[in-house]
Amino acid sequence: MGFNVVNELNSAVEKVESALEAYYSSNKATEKLTDAMKYSLLGGGKRIRAFLTLSFAKMYGATEEAAIPFACAVEMIHAYSLIHDDLPCMDNDDMRRGKPSCHIKFGEATALLAGDSLLTQAFEVCALNDKVSALSSVNAVRILSSLAGYKGMCGGQEIDLSDKVESYEELVYLHSLKTSALIKAACLLGLYAAVDVPNSEDVEAISEYADCLGLAFQIQDDILDVTGTSEELGKPIGSDSKNDKKTVLAFMSLEDARVASVELTTRAISAIARCPDSTTPAELALWLLSRKK
Amino acid sequence: MGFNVVNELNSAVEKVESALEAYYSSNKATEKLTDAMKYSLLGGGKRIRAFLTLSFAKMYGATEEAAIPFACAVEMIHAYSLIHDDLPCMDNDDMRRGKPSCHIKFGEATALLAGDSLLTQAFEVCALNDKVSALSSVNAVRILSSLAGYKGMCGGQEIDLSDKVESYEELVYLHSLKTSALIKAACLLGLYAAVDVPNSEDVEAISEYADCLGLAFQIQDDILDVTGTSEELGKPIGSDSKNDKKTVLAFMSLEDARVASVELTTRAISAIARCPDSTTPAELALWLLSRKK
Repeated sequence: MGFNVVNELNSAVEKVESALEAYYSSNKATEKLTDAMKYSLLGGGKRIRAFLTLSFAKMYGATEEAAIPFACAVEMIHAYSLIHDDLPCMDNDDMRRGKPSCHIKFGEATALLAGDSLLTQAFEVCALNDKVSALSSVNAVRILSSLAGYKGMCGGQEIDLSDKVESYEELVYLHSLKTSALIKAACLLGLYAAVDVPNSEDVEAISEYADCLGLAFQIQDDILDVTGTSEELGKPIGSDSKNDKKTVLAFMSLEDARVASVELTTRAISAIARCPDSTTPAELALWLLSRKK
Repeated sequence: MGFNVVNELNSAVEKVESALEAYYSSNKATEKLTDAMKYSLLGGGKRIRAFLTLSFAKMYGATEEAAIPFACAVEMIHAYSLIHDDLPCMDNDDMRRGKPSCHIKFGEATALLAGDSLLTQAFEVCALNDKVSALSSVNAVRILSSLAGYKGMCGGQEIDLSDKVESYEELVYLHSLKTSALIKAACLLGLYAAVDVPNSEDVEAISEYADCLGLAFQIQDDILDVTGTSEELGKPIGSDSKNDKKTVLAFMSLEDARVASVELTTRAISAIARCPDSTTPAELALWLLSRKK
């Protein structure tokens, strides 16, 4: 069975890619920094998060022009988090997306600044979005910052560092911050690209979808980390367990993990059944369940 | 001669300090991260930037309530930049404001995340400012992000790393990004707390003030780095030259540097003569010229 969503995703990847590229103009003095930012941001990302923003925006009637800057902002946050995650003091990963990590290519200091700069630029891009109301821009900044910061993604990374995860429930909490929070921001930014003041049922339904999708995605990552090939993944096999990271497989068998990811995918799809034409994010969830990398 | 501005500054420090503290609620799982953020953000900063925001806001008629969140946001950006600057891959400084740097106290990984989180929170705080219009919030985010990012402060840090500064002019350009950009953001955020759509003459006058003040401030820092005492500075004497950083003293004598900082201070004060009652920022510039730490 083929997934229609793959064609949609590929088309979105192209649009997001060229929108991202268009943000950069050259400046000789800071060329190395922008080169490092572009190295990690462009070419190679799956753009799942950007695609979620565009998909929810479309479902709620936003134009693509209104949603693209928000989609780019989410990808900038994602790229920054990967650069900082790969640094020696964090996961110390030399490879990312099949090529040397940012700090291997540009040095640690420039990689640190490239991450900082992408994080900062994400909010600039939201604020410069002139195809939405000022209120929508502010809401996008509010959602993205609250879900990416210490109460969201950064908080999840801190828990991940702390080595205090002793149960599946604690691991779920970790991933709700580390992975799902940014996915939730991506989905909600699509909604806010379309609607100035959305109703709370829509926000809750989309949040539930994102929470379930993020956890299913992470479980799938943990499964692929031990069953995939290095070539498929673009990073060494078993690198998560090598780094003593707790994965779901510390708390359940591979088979139970597969069942859990199917159940979470089903819950994600059910959550958005009430939203207008949810075919695309539903298909995306199924496709992600079938991915090999 | 005493400076009235010192009393105003001290009163602002108290208000900003309690506003900053109020942003944090406790969460057991991410306690270490918020502790690291608060360790670097609270208690010890001179709050010059916050004071500039409050001063320009007052000059243009904003309420203090409207300006405080923007002032806090600027201090969050400043605190993040110091945390990341002190990291081993950057300046590798063990001391900051007379106490161990964030990474010495909390470890590199948590320090990295604390910086990321403060940067992110700065934009959240701007977006949550409900005492100004949505347009003012968006403008604050736009200004702060564009001046703190790769075209501003981060770009300046990259040039500083590159060791390519061969002339006084290049050093001035470096500091216009590394130091003045955030000071400019601080001043402009005060204006935007008061006015939805400011006139361009005000923006230019305030920008000129900030450029001159920032450079004068940096020259003063370079002078104090060789003439101050470790106790006054809260960091080892000569730590900038130790790190092979180019300072203005690489291009001019101590005496010429003192003359340059006086001239820049005069230019800063002249620039804002056209603004409504500019006594406070003018006095601040004079007071900064006289500082010993």
